[in-house]
Amino acid sequence: MKLTIERAALLNALGHVQSAVERRNTIPILSNILLEADAGTLALTATDLDLAINERVEASIVTAGGTTVPAHMIYDIVRKLPEGAQIELAYSSESGRLTLRAGRSEFTLACLPQDDFPLMTSGDLPYSFKLSVAELCRLIDKTRFAISTEETRYYLNGIYLHAAESAGVPMLRAVATDGHRLARVETPLPEGAAGMPGIIVPRKTVAEIRKLIDGSEDHVRVELSDGKIRFTFDNAVLTSKLIDGTFPEYERVIPSGNDKVMEVDGKVFAKAVDRVSTISTERSRAVKLAVQGEKLTLSATSPDAGTATEEISVHYSSDPLEVGFNSRYLLDIAAQIEGENAQFIFADASSPTLVRDGTEESALYVLMPMRV
Amino acid sequence: MKLTIERAALLNALGHVQSAVERRNTIPILSNILLEADAGTLALTATDLDLAINERVEASIVTAGGTTVPAHMIYDIVRKLPEGAQIELAYSSESGRLTLRAGRSEFTLACLPQDDFPLMTSGDLPYSFKLSVAELCRLIDKTRFAISTEETRYYLNGIYLHAAESAGVPMLRAVATDGHRLARVETPLPEGAAGMPGIIVPRKTVAEIRKLIDGSEDHVRVELSDGKIRFTFDNAVLTSKLIDGTFPEYERVIPSGNDKVMEVDGKVFAKAVDRVSTISTERSRAVKLAVQGEKLTLSATSPDAGTATEEISVHYSSDPLEVGFNSRYLLDIAAQIEGENAQFIFADASSPTLVRDGTEESALYVLMPMRV
Repeated sequence: MKLTIERAALLNALGHVQSAVERRNTIPILSNILLEADAGTLALTATDLDLAINERVEASIVTAGGTTVPAHMIYDIVRKLPEGAQIELAYSSESGRLTLRAGRSEFTLACLPQDDFPLMTSGDLPYSFKLSVAELCRLIDKTRFAISTEETRYYLNGIYLHAAESAGVPMLRAVATDGHRLARVETPLPEGAAGMPGIIVPRKTVAEIRKLIDGSEDHVRVELSDGKIRFTFDNAVLTSKLIDGTFPEYERVIPSGNDKVMEVDGKVFAKAVDRVSTISTERSRAVKLAVQGEKLTLSATSPDAGTATEEISVHYSSDPLEVGFNSRYLLDIAAQIEGENAQFIFADASSPTLVRDGTEESALYVLMPMRV
Repeated sequence: MKLTIERAALLNALGHVQSAVERRNTIPILSNILLEADAGTLALTATDLDLAINERVEASIVTAGGTTVPAHMIYDIVRKLPEGAQIELAYSSESGRLTLRAGRSEFTLACLPQDDFPLMTSGDLPYSFKLSVAELCRLIDKTRFAISTEETRYYLNGIYLHAAESAGVPMLRAVATDGHRLARVETPLPEGAAGMPGIIVPRKTVAEIRKLIDGSEDHVRVELSDGKIRFTFDNAVLTSKLIDGTFPEYERVIPSGNDKVMEVDGKVFAKAVDRVSTISTERSRAVKLAVQGEKLTLSATSPDAGTATEEISVHYSSDPLEVGFNSRYLLDIAAQIEGENAQFIFADASSPTLVRDGTEESALYVLMPMRV
């Protein structure tokens, strides 16, 4: 393998794929990136065995071929090279080393054999649809905070993506929950997604695809089976295993009989929660909401630190109500709700509360109360 | 105590003093800030028993008095309050609590008695001189990287500040060393510093005063005895204990017989060292400098990772020489040297090397070689 490539193009691709590589690996080759040069293109691949990122960049190929090199090392080297540099990569199978040359710098890197690199096969992916980057970002951003980190309930360690119906309209729905709160957001079901199985996309895959598409305005092709998912975007492909489990019947958790509606400015509410929760020295402490007439009083008490209260104006016409929430969970949801007319729909102090965004009709949150 | 104060003024002062408060304290009152209100001024003080920071800000005092409150808590609250807020602070000795009000927010904070707060006395400080902020920053910035972190050699855990003579001119000199490298920089001895004792300013004090003066263009008043130092600046005062020890006779370490001069562009050198040292997976690995004629070759080798070499142009007319340095130490010094004609003055591969800045004549570094 021998080729020359622009530093900027190589750095960009390395930045994408090296992100999949864990800092510590017991299997040495998982620390490496697979490089494959052929017909005007350098392909880079990294994997952690659960997901793989592949990206193709233009390069002047002198000799086709491939090898694997330490991911973080080559990324650091290319990052430190001067802007505008032309980089030559040459692999010698004799020495088993890759030589990287740029200007008056020369590096040789220890390689591992290309054939030992574990390639992830996607198998047959019968469902295929297109999503705009904005739509995919929204599905992820509005739900990922609620993904569980408890490994024993592994089936909650991702976003549940499935086809559903809202008022007779077919929708693609994303749901995440950790048992304490639930986030649900949807978008019209794209062409090709009809009949797709419900799948659970793992947390790391969610994080990686979100990073990969950040700042772009293009579309993403999504292909899936009941075991794998593949995102194709510009010159990058992310293939991932799915979580092999059954997502709970979340619809049962969403209360339907709540009738006490409080309308509040999302931004004002978020700032008040942030201030009041300062006093909850431990993050698990409660923030109490007391609503009466047009006034919401938020308060927190800590036996060591003191107390905090704040009043904000709301629209509310039901009976006075007091309900407590875990301050961290309330902060997470407060960070999501936007617009001047976000809604909290209460039943009573011991039942789940429904939260609706002011600007984002399809987004819906459920929050379990806490005894205060 | 009762007063009102602008959020911006209080936040600024809290930001300065809370920096002295350690995150974990076994003595509870050391987590607190002392607040003292009197005659149009609120004074804030924090201490870790080794240093204290005091700052005075204008406030509308309704009732004079004082108390102590949790430093990080009050800082977080004030930070989260909206810009432009007017804050009311009221301490009730009956409840032992401070009430903080701003807009529709109200906090009560648990206090500890004002009288229990350990005030640091500076004693008599017979030497007093003025330094420009720029001069003090330079003395700190050019030397602090060489401060030792080895606690057994406590007398190296700071910057040695003392009066000396350079070519018959009285100078104020700052020196730091950890036994592997040494940094020395000086400035004309300011009025009032003549006859001052050599003192060792502890690392934390160096860091705190550097943060405090950052971005300012004013002067700093320095007062000292052989046990304490006090920096006075705008409305802030930092008082600190000094390290009670004897700084080694560092002059003996500075080689005088070195005669092989290599001139190099500081920036170009720093970038080359940074790139080449990427290959030294552990930070203690060596970078080798081989100089011959007008060419310097930097190289590093790692048995696992591979090799790196880079050539840069230098001015050198002595015999060819090869010498190795710890890559981290070389990086630290490379980050300091500026200008197109930084100098490395070698003796041989096993003797200390002298390094001189290109633009900063008074700065001088000594670096011990490493066998490669």
